[in-house]
Formats: sequence, C-alpha cells, structure tokens
Amino acid sequence: MTTIGVVRETDAGERRVALAPDDVPKLRRAGLRVLVEAGAGAGSWFPDPAYAAAGAELADRAEVYAGSDVLVVIGPPDDLTALRPGQWLAGLLAPLTDPVLAERLAAAGVTAVSLDLLPRTLSRAQAMDALTSQASVAGYKAALVAAGAYGGYLPMLMTAAGTTRPARVLVLGAGVAGLQAIATARRLGATVTGYDVREAAQEDIASTGATVLRLDTAAGTGTGGYARRLTAAETAAQQQALDRAVAGFDIVITTAQVPDGRPPVLVTEAALDGLRPGAVVVDTAAGEHGGNVAGSEPGKTMVTPRGVTVVGAAGLLAQLPQAASTAYSRNICALLGSLVRDGAPVLDPDDEIHAAIVVTRDGAVVNPRVLAALGSEVGS
Amino acid sequence: MTTIGVVRETDAGERRVALAPDDVPKLRRAGLRVLVEAGAGAGSWFPDPAYAAAGAELADRAEVYAGSDVLVVIGPPDDLTALRPGQWLAGLLAPLTDPVLAERLAAAGVTAVSLDLLPRTLSRAQAMDALTSQASVAGYKAALVAAGAYGGYLPMLMTAAGTTRPARVLVLGAGVAGLQAIATARRLGATVTGYDVREAAQEDIASTGATVLRLDTAAGTGTGGYARRLTAAETAAQQQALDRAVAGFDIVITTAQVPDGRPPVLVTEAALDGLRPGAVVVDTAAGEHGGNVAGSEPGKTMVTPRGVTVVGAAGLLAQLPQAASTAYSRNICALLGSLVRDGAPVLDPDDEIHAAIVVTRDGAVVNPRVLAALGSEVGS
Repeated sequence: MTTIGVVRETDAGERRVALAPDDVPKLRRAGLRVLVEAGAGAGSWFPDPAYAAAGAELADRAEVYAGSDVLVVIGPPDDLTALRPGQWLAGLLAPLTDPVLAERLAAAGVTAVSLDLLPRTLSRAQAMDALTSQASVAGYKAALVAAGAYGGYLPMLMTAAGTTRPARVLVLGAGVAGLQAIATARRLGATVTGYDVREAAQEDIASTGATVLRLDTAAGTGTGGYARRLTAAETAAQQQALDRAVAGFDIVITTAQVPDGRPPVLVTEAALDGLRPGAVVVDTAAGEHGGNVAGSEPGKTMVTPRGVTVVGAAGLLAQLPQAASTAYSRNICALLGSLVRDGAPVLDPDDEIHAAIVVTRDGAVVNPRVLAALGSEVGS
Repeated sequence: MTTIGVVRETDAGERRVALAPDDVPKLRRAGLRVLVEAGAGAGSWFPDPAYAAAGAELADRAEVYAGSDVLVVIGPPDDLTALRPGQWLAGLLAPLTDPVLAERLAAAGVTAVSLDLLPRTLSRAQAMDALTSQASVAGYKAALVAAGAYGGYLPMLMTAAGTTRPARVLVLGAGVAGLQAIATARRLGATVTGYDVREAAQEDIASTGATVLRLDTAAGTGTGGYARRLTAAETAAQQQALDRAVAGFDIVITTAQVPDGRPPVLVTEAALDGLRPGAVVVDTAAGEHGGNVAGSEPGKTMVTPRGVTVVGAAGLLAQLPQAASTAYSRNICALLGSLVRDGAPVLDPDDEIHAAIVVTRDGAVVNPRVLAALGSEVGS
C-alpha cells in the first residue's frame, strides 16, 4: 500500500501543514495510507488526535521519512538528506528560484513534483493550484491587516450624531491576492478602487464591483498571466500618474509581484508624502528583494514623519494558517488524485500537468524550465 | 466671545481628542472661539495645521487652560488644578465611579457636565450620546480583532478545490458594542449568533439578521437599559447552558458590561475547554475588575493548553482613534449646541438633559446620583 507522509514544516515562522485532517478520509478511500509526524499540524491548530480520528497514523519524523512513498510538504524540508532513492516529494519547491535544490533531489534519486510549475491556465489544473489558493489567503489577510492598522471605520456608519463616509481603499495589483483584498475590503464596507497594468485584470477588478483606476500608461501583461516588467520610460510615466492618483485614498494595499524577481515600487516616497496623516499602506510584496512601497521592510510597521503608516506585510499565510493549510491540503489531494493510479504514484508523460510539474526523476533534473534556470545560474 | 478649549488627553495610552478639525467650523459659525493645545489631535492623526485651517487657534497647554471658558475633554485631565472658578469642564468624567473628582471640581468652582450621565433613552439626547458612539467603535474593532486573531477565513469561500464554510461567531452581550460586533462579523461573511439576557436586546439581535441564542434562563433587563446582575442561581443555570452552547463556535466575542461594577464571567474555564483548538475568544470587558472570560487579562493574548486563543481586548478605542474622536467630537458639538445660548454656556434647570448631566455648579456637587455615590463612599 502506498503511504503518504506528512512532516512538520521546517521554515522559520511557517505554521502551515501540507495535509489537513479533514482530507485524510479522502486519501484513505483512495487506498492510501497516511503517516503524519506528531505535531505537524499544531501550527494550524490541527491536533494529533484529529489526524488519528480521521484515519491517519502518527509517527516521529524519522519514521515518516522511512515509511512514506510520497512526502507531501509546503516548502522543501531542511533535512532533504533523509529522503531515499525512489521516494517522491511533492510541494511548492520553488525550483526556478532554487534550481540547485532540484539538482540535489535528482542526485538523491527522488522524484520531485512542484506545484509552482503548474500550468495555471488549464482548467483541469485549478483544483491543484496552490499558488492561487495561497494568494487568496494572503489577499484576504492583507485587507484585514489594513483594516486593523487603520484608525477609522471602513464602512459608512450612520448615527444620531451624523454619518461617517466609508474609507477609500486602493488595491494595486489585481492578481488573485489583489482581487481577494478588494473583495474583503468591499465586504467591510469600504469604497474600493483597483489598479493593474494588465487589461484582463482591469476586467477582473470591474467584475468585483470595485472601481477601476485607469492611468494613461502602457499595458503590461506578460507571460503566464503575470504582469510583465515595464520599460523604464513606461515605469516613470506610470509612477507619476500613480503618485497623483494615490493621494486621494485612506488605505493602499499593494500586491504586485513579478515571478522570480524584484517587485516593482508602485508607491514611491512622493506618493507617501501625498497621503494624508493617518493613511495606511500595506505592502504584501515586502521581502528581502524590496517591495511595492518605498522603504517598506518585511515584518515591520513604520510611520512616516507625515503620519502615514506603512506595513511591510510578511508572513501573511502564517497568520491565517488554518485557512491556508486547508486550502493547500485540497490542492495536494487533487494532485495526488491525478498522480496515483491503481494505488501508486505514476507520471503520465502524455499528461500536460504531469509534464509541467515534474522536476526530477530517475536521478536527473528533467524539467526544461528548471534546466534553463540551472543553465543561467551556471552562466551567471 | 466664549472660547472652547481642547487639550491633549493625559490618560496613558489615550489617543483620542475631544474635538476633530472637521467640527471646528460648526462651532465658529455658532459664534464660538476654538483654542486647541498644539499636538492635541496627533494621536488621532489630526495634525495642528488641520485645526488651524478649520479656524481654530493653536496654543500651549497653559494658554488653553487660561484662555478657555469651556474645556472639552474625553476623560478628566490629570492637571485639574489648572482649572479656575467659573470655568466649565465637559467630557466623560465618570463621576459615579470617581465621585471624589466631582468634589474636587466643586471645590475649584468649576461647572462640570458629564456625558456619561446622559438620559440615553431620550431621543433628543442621542446626538450627544458619547457612550453609544464609543461603544460602537469598540464593537467594530472587537470584530476586527477577532478576525485578525483567527487562523481561518470568516467568509465562505468557493474555489476550484472546494468550498470553505463561513466561521461561526457568537457575540455575548447585545448592547451597542455587541450589535456593532455582530454587524461587522456579518459584513465579513461569518455566520453570527448573538446572545443577551435582556429580551429587548434579543429583538435587536434578530433585527441585524443574526441568529438569537436562546437559553432557558431568566430575563435580565435592569435599570437604564443595562443588563441587571442576575441572582447566583440564575447565573449558574445561565453559565451551564452557555458552556454547552459556546462549544460549537469558532469565535466568541464578549461585550457584557454592567455599570460601575465587576463584569460577569460568561465564558468559564469549562466553556474554554469545550472550544476547539484554533478557536478565538475576544473579551472586550477585560479590565482591572476582571472580564467576561475566565482568566482574560486586559491587553494580553493567551493561548490555553487546548489551543484556544483568549484576547483581553483593552484599549479598543485607542486602536481606532480617528473614528472614536470623530464620533465623540460630534457628541461634544451636539452638547455645546444644547448648552450655548446667545454665545455663552447656560444650564437650563427645566432641561431634562441639563439636569441629568450637570455634576457641579456654584461650588457644589449638585447631581443627585453623584451625591448618592459620594454618600455610599463615605458610608463604606
């Protein structure tokens, strides 16, 4: 019988787990055994007894490594050397930003599949789309963080002493996270405007009922549905127009990420200076490579001399671990449903999804995109 | 010309201010001069230039004390000795819990009016009802704090990988704060249930669209629309029934306060043990006299051994200073509109509101309720 292994995540601050107790019965019905490291779900408030009650077996970490055929994870564990030849590893392995990891997995004889390589536009892939499910969690949380940092009401409130106007919220970047931030701010009663350089995303904004901010700048749809990087002249024109537009808002939430690169600065120092005291800016792109907001730092909240609060919103998924793990677990189950044939994981070379997500097999890196990333790394 | 003075609040952690820049023109049109201590609005993100632009004069604290006829405040300032005979003081002076302060104000020859003595059921008083406006802010913020501490989504979300059920929220106590917490949790998409011992409040809960939790216990409407304190037997029966009912919820928000007393414990240790790991309890009554939740401490967040997060939600108003100050400022303006006749503040003995809110005048404590509080203090 094929055994699915679940280990506690090893990234600092990570609270998610790759499989939720609720999904264990589904795997059991598919003829799979589920082996869970004791405490693996604790950060997501999934206690060991919940896994046991759902039909999983609890074990220590070494036993999970030794006893499982497919190890499911969020990110790559820091003890990869515990993996053995023939074992599978499935998760968000980021092989394009860390192709050397792929080489190590290949050398260890591990068959690795990575959900961040999923062909996201295929409708059949959507149930496995962990990037989407996690971005949705981050967008929801970003709106809550903004509402929490803001000193006023989001909704319009009518009282005997008068009416309070709703807060004006601007969301920059209307991918999955941005759209979810828009939806959540609208739920809370704010007046929401969305902005994205991609034309298709502008339609998405309009479909949520939010106002679309249109600047007279070039469209920026790139490959894979991500925003493409604009030219310097386009960026300058965009930023000047944005600087002016931003000034009228109480809350700005930025969600503009480009894959494997430095996020664009969308809210400049000039734009921050144009905001009123008490305004709040939440930068979900804040990270080691910068962010969407001038001066934002991941995990830090700062107040400008003018009185604008800038939140470098790092680790949003760890702040909503139950929702993030539940959604991820469903993606993992959909993946396993696609991989497992007659009780064992099999890569079907004719399956578009399998071909896209496989990173290593038979001792070699086989993914063309990862091989290209390795080549450019060698060349750099 | 009568001068209204605004000073920076002196309570630790207080960020509110009694008058917002937006309301200055209203007072000016009524023929009043407005004198604001520099920096008084900073905690609410109201910068000095905003007051100046609205027609107020900025001054240092001593000048505001010296130059104003009516000092408007949130809470009593810690430098009351700076007040002079004949000067007025208006705010939330809590003379029933601190009647000695009233004696000091009387001795100083100050005419003091306190909005917490307002006859709240009079419709004419509603525009001045600072307890209501501030409780509304606290209730809104309590729901945001709960959503922020909770590890899951509040709304139901439908994705390609499945549907997430909405969070189940229980609000205990359906006064102004409780009803606003209900409304806000409902805005966020949660399934909300409300509970209150008072029958009228049960109707209020139903009117928001939330489910009313009905326990087979005695009704508890007391004087002034507050919950009355239940008998020991009633309380025990209520708590046992509540302990059972609480277990099914993901989030519990408690808002049950009784005036001038120890808040009732509504969520017992047994109830906390009945909640699932990951559940969140927000206690807005947490304070120096205890709270609505067993073991909650003001300003502290703790996690029970079982994994239930208990937030002792102190200082909610300071976390939403702009909204709280804006609402309070409107109440103060309505009060001044009632007090000021021909450009000067006057107490009309035939005015039901004036008679209720006046604490001291002509060197004496004149309010019967405050005198009673003083009497019981002497007697104790």
